[in-house]
Amino acid sequence: MYIVVAYDVSEDHVRNKVAETLAAYGLQRIQRSVFAGRLPPALVKELAEKLRRVTRGANADVIIIRVDKRALDTAVRIGPALPREGNVHLH
Amino acid sequence: MYIVVAYDVSEDHVRNKVAETLAAYGLQRIQRSVFAGRLPPALVKELAEKLRRVTRGANADVIIIRVDKRALDTAVRIGPALPREGNVHLH
Repeated sequence: MYIVVAYDVSEDHVRNKVAETLAAYGLQRIQRSVFAGRLPPALVKELAEKLRRVTRGANADVIIIRVDKRALDTAVRIGPALPREGNVHLH
Repeated sequence: MYIVVAYDVSEDHVRNKVAETLAAYGLQRIQRSVFAGRLPPALVKELAEKLRRVTRGANADVIIIRVDKRALDTAVRIGPALPREGNVHLH
């Protein structure tokens, strides 16, 4: 399944740890605090558990939302720092 | 359609303007830099145009991703600042 993960973490070291964890699961950073990518449902569950452990006790909020591949492909992207407008590119 | 909008904006006043714009379209803040909600496709297009204008010349990145209502309802949410774990609540 494809997922988008957005996080909001006050503590720098916890925020870095969250980003590292998401990258370790093969998700791609599509924004400063947003990752996206494809993961089997079992790994999404495992990832959620890991994020729960990583953020325990921290001022953290993480959301994992299931999305369609097509929805990612046709996402509207606004901003100058883009390779190409209109899409989220997963490699 | 339901959408999730995530933004990453360097300039405070532009970031505030983006948040105000999203709220003005009836979207709900579900994280510091993430809004979600339901909008007819025509209004999503209009919103994207407005965000393009608001962020013009700024160091800004905004993503609008289409999501299923069910995906929002079953989003995994991790964090202490929650009314109830497991869901994104749209009012």
